[in-house]
Amino acid sequence: MSNSFGHIFRFTSFGESHGDAIGGVIDGVPPGIFIDITFIQSELNKRKPGESKITTKRKEDDIVEFISGIFENKTTGSPIAFFIKNKNVNSEDYNNIKDVLRPGHGDFTYYHKYRIRDWRGGGRASARETAVRVVVGAIAKLILSKYHIEINAYTSQIGNTKLEIPIEKLDFKNTYHNSTRCPDNTTHKEFEKIILEHKAQKDSIGGVVSCVVKNVPIGLGEPLYDKLSARLAYAIMSINACKGFEIGKGFEVATMKGSENNDQIRYENNNIKFLSNNAGGILAGISTGQDIFFRTAFKPTPSISTTQKTINYNLENIELNIKGRHDPCVVPRAVIVVEAMTAITILDFILLNQAYKN
Amino acid sequence: MSNSFGHIFRFTSFGESHGDAIGGVIDGVPPGIFIDITFIQSELNKRKPGESKITTKRKEDDIVEFISGIFENKTTGSPIAFFIKNKNVNSEDYNNIKDVLRPGHGDFTYYHKYRIRDWRGGGRASARETAVRVVVGAIAKLILSKYHIEINAYTSQIGNTKLEIPIEKLDFKNTYHNSTRCPDNTTHKEFEKIILEHKAQKDSIGGVVSCVVKNVPIGLGEPLYDKLSARLAYAIMSINACKGFEIGKGFEVATMKGSENNDQIRYENNNIKFLSNNAGGILAGISTGQDIFFRTAFKPTPSISTTQKTINYNLENIELNIKGRHDPCVVPRAVIVVEAMTAITILDFILLNQAYKN
Amino acid sequence: MSNSFGHIFRFTSFGESHGDAIGGVIDGVPPGIFIDITFIQSELNKRKPGESKITTKRKEDDIVEFISGIFENKTTGSPIAFFIKNKNVNSEDYNNIKDVLRPGHGDFTYYHKYRIRDWRGGGRASARETAVRVVVGAIAKLILSKYHIEINAYTSQIGNTKLEIPIEKLDFKNTYHNSTRCPDNTTHKEFEKIILEHKAQKDSIGGVVSCVVKNVPIGLGEPLYDKLSARLAYAIMSINACKGFEIGKGFEVATMKGSENNDQIRYENNNIKFLSNNAGGILAGISTGQDIFFRTAFKPTPSISTTQKTINYNLENIELNIKGRHDPCVVPRAVIVVEAMTAITILDFILLNQAYKN
Amino acid sequence: MSNSFGHIFRFTSFGESHGDAIGGVIDGVPPGIFIDITFIQSELNKRKPGESKITTKRKEDDIVEFISGIFENKTTGSPIAFFIKNKNVNSEDYNNIKDVLRPGHGDFTYYHKYRIRDWRGGGRASARETAVRVVVGAIAKLILSKYHIEINAYTSQIGNTKLEIPIEKLDFKNTYHNSTRCPDNTTHKEFEKIILEHKAQKDSIGGVVSCVVKNVPIGLGEPLYDKLSARLAYAIMSINACKGFEIGKGFEVATMKGSENNDQIRYENNNIKFLSNNAGGILAGISTGQDIFFRTAFKPTPSISTTQKTINYNLENIELNIKGRHDPCVVPRAVIVVEAMTAITILDFILLNQAYKN
Repeated sequence: MSNSFGHIFRFTSFGESHGDAIGGVIDGVPPGIFIDITFIQSELNKRKPGESKITTKRKEDDIVEFISGIFENKTTGSPIAFFIKNKNVNSEDYNNIKDVLRPGHGDFTYYHKYRIRDWRGGGRASARETAVRVVVGAIAKLILSKYHIEINAYTSQIGNTKLEIPIEKLDFKNTYHNSTRCPDNTTHKEFEKIILEHKAQKDSIGGVVSCVVKNVPIGLGEPLYDKLSARLAYAIMSINACKGFEIGKGFEVATMKGSENNDQIRYENNNIKFLSNNAGGILAGISTGQDIFFRTAFKPTPSISTTQKTINYNLENIELNIKGRHDPCVVPRAVIVVEAMTAITILDFILLNQAYKN
Repeated sequence: MSNSFGHIFRFTSFGESHGDAIGGVIDGVPPGIFIDITFIQSELNKRKPGESKITTKRKEDDIVEFISGIFENKTTGSPIAFFIKNKNVNSEDYNNIKDVLRPGHGDFTYYHKYRIRDWRGGGRASARETAVRVVVGAIAKLILSKYHIEINAYTSQIGNTKLEIPIEKLDFKNTYHNSTRCPDNTTHKEFEKIILEHKAQKDSIGGVVSCVVKNVPIGLGEPLYDKLSARLAYAIMSINACKGFEIGKGFEVATMKGSENNDQIRYENNNIKFLSNNAGGILAGISTGQDIFFRTAFKPTPSISTTQKTINYNLENIELNIKGRHDPCVVPRAVIVVEAMTAITILDFILLNQAYKN
Repeated sequence: MSNSFGHIFRFTSFGESHGDAIGGVIDGVPPGIFIDITFIQSELNKRKPGESKITTKRKEDDIVEFISGIFENKTTGSPIAFFIKNKNVNSEDYNNIKDVLRPGHGDFTYYHKYRIRDWRGGGRASARETAVRVVVGAIAKLILSKYHIEINAYTSQIGNTKLEIPIEKLDFKNTYHNSTRCPDNTTHKEFEKIILEHKAQKDSIGGVVSCVVKNVPIGLGEPLYDKLSARLAYAIMSINACKGFEIGKGFEVATMKGSENNDQIRYENNNIKFLSNNAGGILAGISTGQDIFFRTAFKPTPSISTTQKTINYNLENIELNIKGRHDPCVVPRAVIVVEAMTAITILDFILLNQAYKN
Repeated sequence: MSNSFGHIFRFTSFGESHGDAIGGVIDGVPPGIFIDITFIQSELNKRKPGESKITTKRKEDDIVEFISGIFENKTTGSPIAFFIKNKNVNSEDYNNIKDVLRPGHGDFTYYHKYRIRDWRGGGRASARETAVRVVVGAIAKLILSKYHIEINAYTSQIGNTKLEIPIEKLDFKNTYHNSTRCPDNTTHKEFEKIILEHKAQKDSIGGVVSCVVKNVPIGLGEPLYDKLSARLAYAIMSINACKGFEIGKGFEVATMKGSENNDQIRYENNNIKFLSNNAGGILAGISTGQDIFFRTAFKPTPSISTTQKTINYNLENIELNIKGRHDPCVVPRAVIVVEAMTAITILDFILLNQAYKN
């Protein structure tokens, strides 16, 4: 259970990495929304590997195909089902890991939970599933566009190197032109270099994705347990390889005084203004109308071709060298997924707010 | 909406800080569980302020009273309702903030979302509600006890000072004897000193709560979207003042190589062993059977008696000095709440696992 | 589990018939609604026994007390908790049934499901819980009033005697003046006579509650599985003693031709008109704007003082004569409960419709 | 919203009658269940028209294709997605109704709710969607088989003619050999005759489906609001054209005395026995272990070729003669759908019961 996400804008996903297809069903889509397939496909392409030196050579020309819920290019209010065929399924790549519990992967936990060995490359646990989230996120963005909400995620750290440019100086138009998904060209090159170094060492490296959401209306989030911050954490932490989430100043608040951290308020020129945004746009779980800002940590790709100690399903100790095609860093591909899960979460709360309008 | 939490072990809470009572209803409690009221009350006492130099002098002798779902000291399978009366409600304390949007508080967002000014001390947004979570968590712990699952949260950082003792050397029996909820007596004193210094400055300070869960069965967590890590993030981030969550190595993974971060595996003495636990006990969203470990950041108390810029409901700029009784640091009181939300989340997944047993 | 009902206007109930209190928590109440306590109490009084020859002499002066979610007589958007104290709990009444599995009651199934014997008069299975539904329904009606939606339930059959007056000639102002809850005074007297005859025979009798809802907007109901008809069936069949539900022509459709049953359509005077309403106001699970009409069957009170064969918890065969105070017919008391569950269901769909407005 | 059904055994459906395909995703399937495709396809075939004189000539060779969640013929615990392609889509059949609001159909309500005209034959409201339920129901039956639970639905009334044979004398092996889905061959022929008469008159006729479930464990159903009876009503009333549901004696209880209706209890030969089963196997919303029995009413097919008054989308009054291929009676095709929804509901409660086992 739990292959669905969202309250009233809600999707359900299905499919394994090496089956025929992956896909999803979106329920709760308002009717009459223009579905711009070109936009959706372009979003999906942002996740596409095989386009740069830093991503795996596995070529996935992911094409989304819609089955239902759209008529004459508009949503009908009925569930939108779609799938993405799994092409280029090269099970031979997995022959050498077929009997092996790969360190850092879900092989161990899936096997113990389900007592099933679907050795064909991660099965359901594969990051390939994130393509489904990107499609759903693209539809959420299409609906959000009339609210002028803008969601920009980007790579802000690889290894020990951080993007040091202030957010307000970043030009997000660059993000997806750069293979590392870093909007600053100089930092992008540093990130690329680090990733390539780890690739050369047959190793991998982790990083951080940051995300900023602009033009958020005041009032999103449903206390007490569906605080906007809590739902974003839930949404983002459900992404493969994600190990941490923080909003606003995040873990830095541990070192701050109340007098530093509180965002003071002024009324100027007929507007309420906060003098800072340490809260990251959320107070008491509800959006303040300021930019939402959060950061999220992704671990290094667990599939590396360095020798590792592990066991096989016969409980024999072995030394493992993973062959096959793996990104040396998952972060660049996670960026569009972070945007997608954010869009889905924000939209869900916008619809809920409409419900409770009196 | 969203004053309920959990899938099939599920509670709903109600009540404002300055109404008659707060309380909750727990649904999905297996029948026949012995309800040890003394234990539940002792858990609630762990959240009690008024007991040390570092907490507010507001005295809340929180007594939990059960209304339903228990017969002859055992659960009946029917919903367990309980309440905690609000004594010592001193609304005069709030006279000076009655018309004010306090920085760092939910006043601004609640007012804009609900168009209601319940000025009596935070209303629903008050941290007082966490007492309800502690009661529910205590019942979850009673049910978990037969699984031998142990949950220990503790204060691990205040300001820039961190608890440097390795987890395995900590004696959790000390945690609740120390007002800072730090299990190491030496660090506790340092923490206490920092908190008192900030109190003396009419200011407040943030910190970090860590949590370790032992004897977790393999297989908890429901992919894809109810990964155990995602649900824990959701549960914990729903606690007042929480701004960050990380599991295992957390944000540190950004700086790690795959060869460092992967927990390698051996089969020794008829047991599968991981050679490390960087994952924090969760792989692909499912518990590995290793200790679950996570850290979570709490912001400094927003109510400070230092002068702050803000506005009132007439949109006038004012200078605010908050009087009244406020903890200079929320972290010590958050510790038992973190344990409670963890217990609730873990139990929910244990029950779900039983459901799907074939 | 499952002591909650509703999607986004959602309540959770608690309490046993012979505990301290029963009550509920309502989540998803829009803020700013005026809460007319007098109206709510008057609704609750409509369920009150002890007022006529045909109801039990057990006197329950049910007074609803609100704990949270209301400030200065308006809803705040926070959960509304309330309770109704159990006065007049006369456990002696239950001494003679303490060890007995009463035929027609939940004693057998509750005991086997939960392995708990709460012999104090039905415990959670008692119809006393329906008082909670009435309070929630009253609040739903307050919110629905601005939509001019009118819900009228009434007793339409007792035993073999049916109310034969066409609906449009009924004056619903009479309903709650008549102890049988039949709006036609002549039929009311017949119903009363039948009930008294069965009472004299130490027996009980079943009946039918009908319900008509006027001024329903077009478009309520969420295909495919939350058809308005399906949700109403679910809501109503959850009421104690309910054994059947039918909408529009109901079971009569089995005998009808398409040419008879189809409601034909005309456009006249700038309005779309249906030439009949066999559908009962719902087509394909969505409200048509016509009156919603349904009927629902209630079984005879199972507690009778006629001798019955049954067993006790020691598995001994016994002859049972139930003493104590029991209505000879549950139907009159069910009428307001049917209205309440209808109001709750309709409101939930209105809020959902607002959510999906594009 | 609401294209999902079930709590923890939960499916989501998608697809319109004249799109490429319909299908579903099942979440919460326990792992390791053998998936007998032949059985599933045979269940689907039971719904197939085009096989007798009484069903439409539209030939739908519905073939179910599975996409995910099954590996080496066993369930993996991951979501099972499947689709059924729409062949034989003859949109020309719909040319004459393209602009028309068909009486008795969802055209009116769908158009007003969603403001979309998908004129291609009913779109989402088409009964074609019930094929998805049958596939999900077949998988539920495969899981239920180890509990020896048997579900038998059958046609028990067409027009004014009722099947008069007592249930215990019916041989359910005949049900699907007879095109009317009546297990008694003699009554079957009467039913067939009635249906053909209505067909000859260019009209249609309604009927009743009865269902009996054997070997149900005691204890299914989750009070208070998820009573087994309430959930069955919800499940069944969600089927197209269903207008009524009754359990046990159903509406007949209105005419019964408590002394007649109560199922008395004896302990004989080390077994608890009920002396009757008027309750239909459910007391206080929980299964008693006796056979569950319910009846459900289906309206006559609204698509008839008799002239009807209606309007078109230009709000012009017209006289409509529906051409195309339509069953003169939906009841025979509903029988397997009733079984499917029953299986899905029962299984959901069995899994929930496992969850709460202490």
